[in-house]
Amino acid sequence: MENNQWQTAITDIGPGKIRVRGYEITDMMDKLSFAQAVYLILRGELPDDKEARMMEAILVSSIDHGASPPSVLGTRTVMSGGNSLNAAVAGGVLVIGDSHGGAIEQSARIMQEWVKKDGSPQKLAEDLVADLRATKKRMPGFGHRLHETDPRTIKLFEIASQLDFSGRHTELAKAIEAELEKVGGRKLPINVDGAIAAVISDMGFDWRLGKGFFIISRVPGLIAHAYEEMTTEKPMRKLGNTNYKYSGPPERKI
Amino acid sequence: MENNQWQTAITDIGPGKIRVRGYEITDMMDKLSFAQAVYLILRGELPDDKEARMMEAILVSSIDHGASPPSVLGTRTVMSGGNSLNAAVAGGVLVIGDSHGGAIEQSARIMQEWVKKDGSPQKLAEDLVADLRATKKRMPGFGHRLHETDPRTIKLFEIASQLDFSGRHTELAKAIEAELEKVGGRKLPINVDGAIAAVISDMGFDWRLGKGFFIISRVPGLIAHAYEEMTTEKPMRKLGNTNYKYSGPPERKI
Amino acid sequence: MENNQWQTAITDIGPGKIRVRGYEITDMMDKLSFAQAVYLILRGELPDDKEARMMEAILVSSIDHGASPPSVLGTRTVMSGGNSLNAAVAGGVLVIGDSHGGAIEQSARIMQEWVKKDGSPQKLAEDLVADLRATKKRMPGFGHRLHETDPRTIKLFEIASQLDFSGRHTELAKAIEAELEKVGGRKLPINVDGAIAAVISDMGFDWRLGKGFFIISRVPGLIAHAYEEMTTEKPMRKLGNTNYKYSGPPERKI
Amino acid sequence: MENNQWQTAITDIGPGKIRVRGYEITDMMDKLSFAQAVYLILRGELPDDKEARMMEAILVSSIDHGASPPSVLGTRTVMSGGNSLNAAVAGGVLVIGDSHGGAIEQSARIMQEWVKKDGSPQKLAEDLVADLRATKKRMPGFGHRLHETDPRTIKLFEIASQLDFSGRHTELAKAIEAELEKVGGRKLPINVDGAIAAVISDMGFDWRLGKGFFIISRVPGLIAHAYEEMTTEKPMRKLGNTNYKYSGPPERKI
Repeated sequence: MENNQWQTAITDIGPGKIRVRGYEITDMMDKLSFAQAVYLILRGELPDDKEARMMEAILVSSIDHGASPPSVLGTRTVMSGGNSLNAAVAGGVLVIGDSHGGAIEQSARIMQEWVKKDGSPQKLAEDLVADLRATKKRMPGFGHRLHETDPRTIKLFEIASQLDFSGRHTELAKAIEAELEKVGGRKLPINVDGAIAAVISDMGFDWRLGKGFFIISRVPGLIAHAYEEMTTEKPMRKLGNTNYKYSGPPERKI
Repeated sequence: MENNQWQTAITDIGPGKIRVRGYEITDMMDKLSFAQAVYLILRGELPDDKEARMMEAILVSSIDHGASPPSVLGTRTVMSGGNSLNAAVAGGVLVIGDSHGGAIEQSARIMQEWVKKDGSPQKLAEDLVADLRATKKRMPGFGHRLHETDPRTIKLFEIASQLDFSGRHTELAKAIEAELEKVGGRKLPINVDGAIAAVISDMGFDWRLGKGFFIISRVPGLIAHAYEEMTTEKPMRKLGNTNYKYSGPPERKI
Repeated sequence: MENNQWQTAITDIGPGKIRVRGYEITDMMDKLSFAQAVYLILRGELPDDKEARMMEAILVSSIDHGASPPSVLGTRTVMSGGNSLNAAVAGGVLVIGDSHGGAIEQSARIMQEWVKKDGSPQKLAEDLVADLRATKKRMPGFGHRLHETDPRTIKLFEIASQLDFSGRHTELAKAIEAELEKVGGRKLPINVDGAIAAVISDMGFDWRLGKGFFIISRVPGLIAHAYEEMTTEKPMRKLGNTNYKYSGPPERKI
Repeated sequence: MENNQWQTAITDIGPGKIRVRGYEITDMMDKLSFAQAVYLILRGELPDDKEARMMEAILVSSIDHGASPPSVLGTRTVMSGGNSLNAAVAGGVLVIGDSHGGAIEQSARIMQEWVKKDGSPQKLAEDLVADLRATKKRMPGFGHRLHETDPRTIKLFEIASQLDFSGRHTELAKAIEAELEKVGGRKLPINVDGAIAAVISDMGFDWRLGKGFFIISRVPGLIAHAYEEMTTEKPMRKLGNTNYKYSGPPERKI
């Protein structure tokens, strides 16, 4: 007789029981921040204080980037067609492909492959960039259509350095940036995707989870856009991601 | 000439500038937890300490519920068809409709309507339950197919009470639970959807954002399931949400 | 012991056997057009010649409407983010909500409710329009942001009339159009959604299938747009549904 | 000044004007079957009689395969969560990835690459199979988990042969099937994906449209399943793709 039973190691449920990776959900609600719980469910183990702090910063970094990213256009377009909030969020998450957010995955994959090889970060960067040029490929996670220097990258690396997460992957990323400029003649700065890729790799995460960090971080932003569309715009309006203006509060300090 | 320019009050971007609701993203990365940043982007203002603590607990509460919810089946099915992580997450978020997670929205809408009326929570609950029975409708956010008493509800109300968020909506929710038992003859406990609905209403959130809290909370769970499916199962396998077994770590304490 | 077995009346499969509503798929491939097979799978029975001819015209009518509909923007945005063809089509289908294509469903629901009442189409239209005005609602399927008279409506009604499908629902639709103009002072022409709603109602289809006709018809158009985006545009480009130009073949005759 | 205007060669619209690839939609409604219109919009030109007949058979072939495919589970799961018809269809289309329907794309890509090389189909098949074995890859579009011989393949090749569409791609497909059996010791029959891949390649379609044929064909089946779920099942029920039974009409003839 056919037996299709399958297994899951994530959460154990039963009447009155919900245990994530072995921990009672009510204990988690008492003692963990959301970012700590995210770390636990993705990694299987609780983060220490440094890992928890790093998670918070990574998840805050990509929460929104205004109305220009295509995922926002996806979410607003679904909402504009007369749909529910979950459909609108799904429409935005769908857009987060190889060319948008997906660079974290590809960038982390390449870095995790190359750091296993012998040699200094500089030597590896030289070989990697030569390899990319020979095969006419671009290094994912470098360059940004808007920012000359991505402020999120600098802040992420600063926090990672304070927490001692700047390991061989981050060194390789910085060496690649320098090598790309040397060989290509112009700066292709590490963008936030590349920075997240380096830091999560130094934290020990599998590159195949890379896009997941971006999705978790960006979903609240997509919900804010869906809600704004729902409450301030007419259905079936003309939509685009260039012809908008910021109308919110001016600069302020926390 | 037609002018299609539109406005957004969420995030202001420019070269080297990313300001969410007026705050620099780098300041946010330094000083806010992810849950605080979520509060800011949804609400437009920073949370105080109590609001921040409440947000953490709400977002942790619904991070996962094992392999039985249909959103997990949606995510795993998309992954099993040979798709990318973002498509799998979108497939799960799509499932979060009126019958799954959507109860937060509907429950909060009803509570926010009824608390505006005159009368004690008990009186309102009597009228509301009579009204529902007359129109043969169910009260969303009450009853659970698995839990007789939902442990997440008890913990959420406990934390809300400690933080002084137990206002008129929570009182109404509890009065509805009592009235439903009195009139219907059996307990229909407030489930986690109903509890979140009551607490976010007491915090002042618009009911139309209700489903958003569930989506933000559950997306990391969906990513954990997508990753597990991707790394441990074969494509196109037979799938269902009853024939599985928990294979993770046994009970442990934080 | 729990028994979760469920039933489906659509297709019976087994080794070497695929029977849709009882008919062998190979027989269907030999003897049915695609539109006839669509009728069979939705309705459960084969169409006669007139029903088959009507199905072809309905499905052709909504195959595309250029680059302005939000569903096209949804599909192109997902493709532009670096995703697969199926994700891009899903992104477009997601947009087809209450405000876009969904009017077929709502319009057919209202018409199917009202034709059951006693009275001439004129009398019903008067009551229905008065009812809508009293509750400040719009009649779905009437009015178009671009076409003063929707050419697809005229052609659909012409073919339906030739095939004797112009029954009480179509008469009601035309009476509503006349009444809306009389009472409102300006023409709100039946659009293609309203016309499909009337015709499928006269053919005996349940209004809950209404949006399905639009989706089946439009999916090939979405695929053409996804393919054009994939083969002629760069990823992550700026996108909108107003700033485009038609660059295809000039007018020609079949 | 920045100019973001973009171009589309699919459909030209204006007040009272809808022209697909240059043809008036009303002319198309009068003179084309739906399958002919699908050919036109995908290919840019009208099909001749043989191409039209082939399109009908291809689109009929994959309209449904019962309740076991994961795309049906995706559609039913979204519907079961309490969502609209378009969200349910999107949920099913999302599942149609590399491992489900996506084989058409990959199979057509490989065949279109290899037929350009010199040599008889037999010689090419030998080299291709040797190549696949050396790189430990499988040939997409061959083998089926249920059918020993896929009846749709036989019928498609029979019709293609009658219409003179059995060209070099179909010959290569048959040679690959023979070679796989010779080298591997057991039959891996061309499945419907592989057969469609061969036939559309012989018709001159780009392999990147491959998955599109499957999606267009299967969407009506997904709608039938969504409608059945909506009208006969309770929300949030337990769901799976093994524990179901066919309850429709017995075998019958067209």
